[in-house]
Formats: sequence, structure tokens, C-alpha cells
Amino acid sequence: MAQLIADRRDIDFVLHEQLNVEELSKNEKFEAFNRKTVDMVVSEARNLAVKEMLPTWKEGDEVGCTFNAGQVIIPESFKRLFGLFNDGEWLAMNEDPEWGGQGMPRSVSSAASEYFNGANYPFMMYPGLTHGAGKLVEEFGTDEQKHLFLKNLYTGKWTGTMLLTEPCAGSDVGALETTATKNADGTYSISGSKIFISGGEHEMAENIIHPVLARIEGAPAGTKGISLFLVPKYRVNADGSLGAFNDVVCTGIEHKMGIHGNATCSLTLGGKGECVGTLLGEENKGMKAMFVMMNEARLLVGMQGFSCATTAYMYAVNYAKERIQGPNLTKPAGGGVPIIQHPDVRRQLLIMKSYVEAMRSLLYFIGYCNDVIAITEDAAIKDKYQGFIEILTPVAKGYVTDRSFEVCNHAIQVYGGYGFVEEYPVAQLMRDCRITMIYEGTNGIQAMDLLGRKLGMNKGKVFMDLMVEIQKVIKESKAHESLAPFTANVEAALNKLGETAMHMGKTAMSDKVMNAFAFAHPFLEVTGDVVMAWMLLWRGTIAASKLSDAKKKDLPFYEGQLKSLEYFTCNVLPVTLGKMDVIKATNGAVVDISEDSFIG
Amino acid sequence: MAQLIADRRDIDFVLHEQLNVEELSKNEKFEAFNRKTVDMVVSEARNLAVKEMLPTWKEGDEVGCTFNAGQVIIPESFKRLFGLFNDGEWLAMNEDPEWGGQGMPRSVSSAASEYFNGANYPFMMYPGLTHGAGKLVEEFGTDEQKHLFLKNLYTGKWTGTMLLTEPCAGSDVGALETTATKNADGTYSISGSKIFISGGEHEMAENIIHPVLARIEGAPAGTKGISLFLVPKYRVNADGSLGAFNDVVCTGIEHKMGIHGNATCSLTLGGKGECVGTLLGEENKGMKAMFVMMNEARLLVGMQGFSCATTAYMYAVNYAKERIQGPNLTKPAGGGVPIIQHPDVRRQLLIMKSYVEAMRSLLYFIGYCNDVIAITEDAAIKDKYQGFIEILTPVAKGYVTDRSFEVCNHAIQVYGGYGFVEEYPVAQLMRDCRITMIYEGTNGIQAMDLLGRKLGMNKGKVFMDLMVEIQKVIKESKAHESLAPFTANVEAALNKLGETAMHMGKTAMSDKVMNAFAFAHPFLEVTGDVVMAWMLLWRGTIAASKLSDAKKKDLPFYEGQLKSLEYFTCNVLPVTLGKMDVIKATNGAVVDISEDSFIG
Repeated sequence: MAQLIADRRDIDFVLHEQLNVEELSKNEKFEAFNRKTVDMVVSEARNLAVKEMLPTWKEGDEVGCTFNAGQVIIPESFKRLFGLFNDGEWLAMNEDPEWGGQGMPRSVSSAASEYFNGANYPFMMYPGLTHGAGKLVEEFGTDEQKHLFLKNLYTGKWTGTMLLTEPCAGSDVGALETTATKNADGTYSISGSKIFISGGEHEMAENIIHPVLARIEGAPAGTKGISLFLVPKYRVNADGSLGAFNDVVCTGIEHKMGIHGNATCSLTLGGKGECVGTLLGEENKGMKAMFVMMNEARLLVGMQGFSCATTAYMYAVNYAKERIQGPNLTKPAGGGVPIIQHPDVRRQLLIMKSYVEAMRSLLYFIGYCNDVIAITEDAAIKDKYQGFIEILTPVAKGYVTDRSFEVCNHAIQVYGGYGFVEEYPVAQLMRDCRITMIYEGTNGIQAMDLLGRKLGMNKGKVFMDLMVEIQKVIKESKAHESLAPFTANVEAALNKLGETAMHMGKTAMSDKVMNAFAFAHPFLEVTGDVVMAWMLLWRGTIAASKLSDAKKKDLPFYEGQLKSLEYFTCNVLPVTLGKMDVIKATNGAVVDISEDSFIG
Repeated sequence: MAQLIADRRDIDFVLHEQLNVEELSKNEKFEAFNRKTVDMVVSEARNLAVKEMLPTWKEGDEVGCTFNAGQVIIPESFKRLFGLFNDGEWLAMNEDPEWGGQGMPRSVSSAASEYFNGANYPFMMYPGLTHGAGKLVEEFGTDEQKHLFLKNLYTGKWTGTMLLTEPCAGSDVGALETTATKNADGTYSISGSKIFISGGEHEMAENIIHPVLARIEGAPAGTKGISLFLVPKYRVNADGSLGAFNDVVCTGIEHKMGIHGNATCSLTLGGKGECVGTLLGEENKGMKAMFVMMNEARLLVGMQGFSCATTAYMYAVNYAKERIQGPNLTKPAGGGVPIIQHPDVRRQLLIMKSYVEAMRSLLYFIGYCNDVIAITEDAAIKDKYQGFIEILTPVAKGYVTDRSFEVCNHAIQVYGGYGFVEEYPVAQLMRDCRITMIYEGTNGIQAMDLLGRKLGMNKGKVFMDLMVEIQKVIKESKAHESLAPFTANVEAALNKLGETAMHMGKTAMSDKVMNAFAFAHPFLEVTGDVVMAWMLLWRGTIAASKLSDAKKKDLPFYEGQLKSLEYFTCNVLPVTLGKMDVIKATNGAVVDISEDSFIG
């Protein structure tokens, strides 16, 4: 049986046939990443994922993390794995080699990330957050902060976290109460309690670096008075050596539905008055800095959810091909057949396939947008691609994780009773996946981001650019008569999305703002549907143009692309149109119902 | 805070305002169940559920069951609880008092069942399966079998199970391999292995009675050669006393995603050649007997899933009223408000509310159909109501558990990060709920049942009767002008469902049978949507007629009924129409895609 994390053929399709990432290597910045190197990178990532990460995934779930008097024990096997991961220099694939990175295009690293997260995403949260903390230091740190922290983070010598949430400040970060008091030497004494800190405490690395949101005494209320600080677990001396314990105490870990391998910590900072941090960036500009990290984190969360989905899909297809149960409907006396022959199983597999493929293309495309920005000199192109990232981020986080959870759920259903048994992998995939719909901004927050911030960005130009980009694919697909009915459905959906967006934008600016936001999530959903259709049409157009000259072994793959496109455009998009009708009608029940009416 | 299992006001509404169950007491059979008694029964059930069952639910999840050398230890608290449950004579609420039952209408016992399952459904599986085993003895047992087993089962002195599944015989029961060899004394020696046996082994009762499907040597292949046997854990002597151990050995229990409190056992029967059973019913007619039990079990599973949903909804509403987070959108400077003021939270709560209410009405209505059958002398009415039960069973199992899982999923989202933490109740509710979509026939099987068996039953008369029944409510609702837009949407959906059903029936009988069954689940889904709309319109019509004279304290409840109706008919039904368009188009991608195309 093939390894079960991701479909390599499809990954190669996206990298080389859809995005043509080799073109990027024509630019000096990515010259090392020719086709051969790209393929090698993906193969190496797959090897590490399959051989080393996957075997630790179940242990992470079953053994999990334990807490004892401030100490957190994470799964034993993670420590060795983290060493291997760092030896391979995977933690900062895209970053500057000066600081320990590999300078890899993001489109390419997306493939590695898919393999790693598909194999053990709870483990991957440790390096993932470490990278995010490093990024904050790189973007906002002083030279001294960079020299003290950055390479140690990007090489995984130390790990990093992200300290935002407090018991009364979750979605509303502005409500946080952790304080920072300036000391004579320019440092700050930090005091407060943080919760839901992934990887907040463990013994896997020598030090843990916590970027912390806190409020300097006298700062304005809300998000405008929040500053960002760099707070290490052990103080760092000027020569880079470790100093005293910095009074960051873990007071407990959460018992969660999934991602048991990752320690979700409650931390008390400065309980003994001995927690010291340095300002990262400017005073009261902490939220702006945090958003740099958060936007990346949101894309990573989309990748996490998606990786559960792609793995669940692979397992489900393989199980459906092997599990014998019941006769083929058209041959009732023919004896048991593999369940992939049963229409309802096929239906679920094809739903899963079309979402997984479309989501893969979307996430890699967003990586690719970063690559374009990194190499272009043209400000207009830079702006346009930055706009794509901005407007697609809530889709990549909110819509993708919603659908990924559904894909995992289908996988359980394909497994039947065995899907509910933890001996098989799909139950854990669904449990692990569930948090991706919540953290880094719930999917409701993502929907608000799309409607409230992204839709109107640059007076709507960002959204218009996206529509134009989709229209380009529609135009190309029209060269293929065989695609005509699918193209027509995508075009109709895109046009109607335009109308719907216009309606939503107007409504959100009117006194019906509550009604508009009652449909923010449905609007995210239909936007996501159209984005999926775009990606599948793009893929289908390539497949259609390759079919006539394709090698025999490639035929099922290309034909499969056309089936995903057909399934989605003929079975999902017509329902999407109905959802748009509902949005445009903007029924008031959700806003109008009195709170007393919810329970009698 | 109100107890959080179910909304008593809404339960009373269904029992007394929608179904008028008191009318049933005019018949001798149910004369004991006047309004006062009914209310007392519901209150007693609620008390037991809240005070005794709910406190054991978390323990069942955390401690779970353990297996050691053939012995299964279930949560300690369950034993006492089972005693209390049996003292209250709750196990056989609807059955004949002669055998230990209470002779209660099923509409009424639905309310008790909702409370019990909402409080601890993994526990309730023990008495639930015991009741099912008893039912088989009652329907198919000889006088001797009845006297030996029935009262002991219905009073919970002994427990019962249901032994169908084997490793290679899940959905395809006909593939089972357990054998029965007739002995000289008329008993049968049983030999085989069964898996996924809920409550298959424990020490909570003196004996466990296993109805077992097995194949008598020389019997035909498939389901036609299956017979049903009664196989006790300890043999039962002619005087009712317990004899020797009957060689039914538990070889392990499953580690599952949820329902940890219920032991899911693998059992080996006759490993030492010493397992003896008696035939229950006729030789080779085991499947027919099993279906009697299975149909009831399916309705019970619908109740289990629904109970998770109603409990999850109650928790979510209460949490949303208490959790302060972020300002009201229309008062950005106003400080934190309860999250129930945020449109996306309200949206989710109103989705949950409308499904929970409609599902409650549906399940109680099916109970009520049984009551009508039990008391009517009119064969046509009996047939009609039996038809309602038949055609609504796949909806009550398949559609209801699909939607219940969604409701639980929304509850987690409303809780945000806390929803993922097992300290709060909603994660467990979703985990527990997940299996209801699988066992007693996966929801894919339910969809096949609706399309393949129920739709064409009695030449389509059963489906027509259902449409006529829904039309009656539409007609009544037309008396209320305020309901006009909602009524119109229900009528349009019903008419289109009729067309869709006609199309599906024809397609299933044509050579496009595979295509038809590729849309069996979507067809179940749209049928379920229309059934929900029917129930909500029925409720709304009652609410509309009561509003003008209602007491002030009842106003929010009745207004809430109208909001559920408005939400569902204006936001869900338009999408349902799109789904019906898709079904009618019957796109072939699912059937046409080659197996090789699923993974590249």
C-alpha cells in the first residue's frame, strides 16, 4: 500500500503542472530550486514524515502530555524527532539562510508542510510556533534581539510560543489584563496569566521564548494599548548564555479532544515578581506586530486542517479498496466486493477528493503568491498578489478547516464501525482537526474578517482582482468544449458571487449591519465554494489539455481531475447558488429573535 | 441555571399542545395516563436524569471500561444507577405490566427517554439493549422462553445484548459465519466470534442474555440461512435458577472515540465447545426477527443522537448567555457583552434550536404513531400510521443523527477554545454522538432503506400518505396570514420533493440503478429537510393560534416557535430546493469515475 499521508502525484501536479514552480528558479532568489531540487525536497520531506513522524503520531495521542508540579512531560519520541527535524533544517524553510533558514519558495515548502502536518500535526505545532516567534523577532526585533534569539529559534535550538489568550480575553484580545512595568534598565517586568499556550512548557529544548501581549501601565484600553514583549523561560545573557529562571510558571495543561501530543499550557508570568521581558517593536503597537504573526499562523492552521483531510482521504480510499462487504448493487448474487463499488461510498470519496484537491491548490497558490511578491520588482503585481493573500486567508483558514473537518468526518463514515475505534487512524484525525476551526480566530472571526475587512479593502479592488483572476481561468477553460457545462456553472457562480458580495458590502455599511454579519459565515462559505470551483476548473483545464498526449499511466489521474471538476460544479455549485439566494434575501430571524425565546 | 438536558417547556409543548397525548387516555389501554400522570412521569424521569444519571456521565467517559482476562469492569457508579433505574421501573416503560412493563404510551416515554439519554446515553445503552432483547423474546419466544427470560429482562434483573456483527459481516449481515449445530435435546451448540457487542460483558447483572444470529449447518447462504438463538452467559435451569457458565467469553473491548462508559465487546462463543442456545422463532427466519428489533433499535439510535443534540443546545445557549466577550457590533465602545449578542453565535444557536425542536417533534410523533396503532380498531388507520413509522424510521435514524452531530459541532464552536477542552461537556457530546451515524445500519444504509424499500412500499402509498399528512398541516397554517411566506416555502418544497421522489423511484428501477443510489443519501437529506419543515410549520401554526391569548410568560416561547419556522423555511429550504435540482439532474460522476482515478 502506498504511504497514506498525501497523494504525491497530485502534489507534483500542483507544483509543476499548475503553478510551474520551476519558473521561480529563474530568479536569483530561488535559483537553487530547480525541478530536481524541488523534487528532492518533497521526497526528503515525505521520507521524514513517513518514516519518523508518522510512527510517533499515535503515541502522541495515547500517551499525550502530563503535568506535574510545573513540569510538563511531552511524548518521549518527540524529542528525538525534533532533533531529526532540526538536523534536516526544516524549521525555517522559507527564511534567510543568514539566520538558519533555507530560502525555499513557499509554494514548495507547502508540500513539505503538508507531509509533515499530515504525519503528526500535534508535533509540528512545536516547530510551527517556534518559527512564528522567530518571524516576530526577525520583523520587529532590534539587532540585539535578533542576535540573541533568531538563529536559536530558526534552528530549533530553542522553541517559541505565542502568548495572547487569557481567561477573559479570547476572541476579544483587547480585553487582556497582563501588565508590563518599565524598569530602570529599559526592560519590563511582566505580570499576568495566560491560557491555551501551545507548547508553553516542556523540556524538549534548552529554552522557550514567549512573545507576550501585555499592557504597559497607563496604556489606553482595548487593542490600542497593547504592546508585545519577548519573554524567555530562562533569561538570556548578553553573550547568549542562559541566565536565571525567568518566573514563567506552568500551572496546568488542558485535557483536550485532540492534539494530545501538544501541551496546551496555562502560564503565570511574574508570580514572584521576577519575570522580565524586552519590548518587541514599539510601545502600544503590539497588535499590529501580532497580526503579522497571526496572518501566517492562520495560513498554517489551514494547512493543519487540510493535512488531516488529505491523510483521512488517503486512508479512506485505501480502506474502501480493501474492505470487502456486500455485493455490487447490479450483481446481487455476486458475493462481497470492495466497498468502493458501493455508490454511497464512492459519493463520499469523490466529495473528499474534490475538496482535498481544490484545497491543496488553494494553499499552495497562496504560498506561490508569497513567492511572486518576493521576486517581483513591479509594485502593482506585488500589491495584487498581496491582495490575493489577504482575501484568501480567511478562506484558507475558515473555509478550509470547516471542509477539512467534514472530510475527516466522511472518512470515519467510510470506515463504518471501525472508524469509531481508535485503533484505526481516522477518529484521531477528526479529533485533531476539530481545533483548527477554533484557534487563531474562530471561523466566525474569519468570516467577519472577510466581510468586515477584506471585502472592502482598497475600495473593493482586492475582491475585484480575485474575480478577474478567476475569470482568466474561465476564459482558458473555454478553449475546451468538453468542459463547457462545468465552465458555465463556474461562471454563473462567480457572477452571482459578485452580486452577493455587492449586496453584503452595502448591507454591512447600512443600519442593517447586524443582519449582514449574521450572514458573514454563509458568505465565507459561498466564497469558498467559488474558490474551490476556480481551483478545480484550473486543474481541469490543464488535465483536458494534457489528456490527448498523456502516457497511459497518467490517464486515470487526468480523468480523475475532470471527475472532481464535474462532481463539484454539477453537485455542489447548484446548491451554492441557493445559498447565495438566501444571503441576498438576508432574512432577519437571527437578529430579531429575542434572547428569551431560545429556551422556553 | 436551569438543568441542561432538555427544554421542559418545549417537551410539554410537543406532548400537550402538538400531540395532545392526554387524548390517548380516553382509551382503556392508556387510561392511567392522564395529563397529571404524564407530567409526573416526565418530572420523575427528569429528576432521575439530572440528579443521578448526569453526575455519572463524565466518570463513564474518563474512567471508561477496562478489560482484564475475560472480565470487563464498567464504571463503578453505573451499578448503583442501574439499581435506581430498575427500582423506578423505567426499563420497559411501554411494555405489558404482566412482564414487568408500565404500559406507557410511546409518545410519553419519548420524553423520559430524551432526559435519560441526554443525561448519560452510554449508560442507557445497557437497559436499552436489554429492552430490545426482551422484545425479541416477547415477540418470538416460546412460552417457556418467555417465562424463563422475559420478566428478568424487562425488570433489569438480567441484561441483554444483540449479537450480529462479525469481523467480515458488518453492513452485510448475511456474510456471518457463526454456526449452530442441533443437539439431541433440541438445543443448539453455538460456535463463532462476534464483535462490536455493546454491553456484551460486565458484572452489573447476574446474567446476560444474548440473542445471537447464526447459521444452522446446511442452511442456505446469505440472509436466508440465518437463524436467531437465545444464548445466556450462564445457562438457565428449568426452574429459572442459574446453571453453568455457557462458554461465552469476552476476548477484548474496543477503545473508542466516545461512549466510553459502554463496553463494546468481542465475544467468542463455544471456544471450548460448551456454548448452548435455544432457537428463538423459526429456523432460517432470524433476519426477519432481527428486523423487528432493529427497527426499534434504529429509532432508539435516533433518540440517542438527538439527546446529545438537545443537551448540547441547552449548554450552548446557557454558555452564550453567560460568556462575556467583545462589544456588541452596534456599540463598539460599549465593552464586553454576552456572546449571544454576536450575530454569528445567534445564527448557530438558531440553527441548533430549529433542528432540535423539529427533531423532537419528529421522534415523539413516531412514538405517537405507535400509540395510535395500539388503540385503534380501524385497519386503515393502523396501516397508515404503520406506514408513517416505516418511512420515517430512516429519517429518524439517518437524518436525525447527521443533524444531531452537526448540532453538537455547533455547540463546540459556540464554546470556542473551551469547546475543545474536555472539562466542558460539549466535546464529549460530539464524541458520543458520532457513533449514532454508524451503528444499527450506517446512515448510508438508512438512505438505501428509504430509497430502495420505503419509497416504493405499498406501490408508493406510504410516501403519498406522508405527503397528504404534511399537506394537512400546510392547509391549517394557511388560516394564519402571518405564516404565509413560510407556508409557501414549505408547500413549494413539498411539491418539489414529490417530483424528486418520483424521479428517484423511476431511476432506481431503470438501468441507472447505481446512479439512483449515488443520490440515496442526498435524497434522505432533502426528505429530512421537508420533514423538519413540516414539524416546524405544525408547531408554528399552533404558536400562531395561541399568541393572542397567551400569558405574558409564554410569549417568548411562542414567538421563538415562529422564529424557528422563519429561520428554517427562509434559510434552509431554499438550499434544499437547490439540492433537489441536483438530485433530479442525477449527474453521473460518482458512478463513472474509475477506481484508479481516486489516487494518482
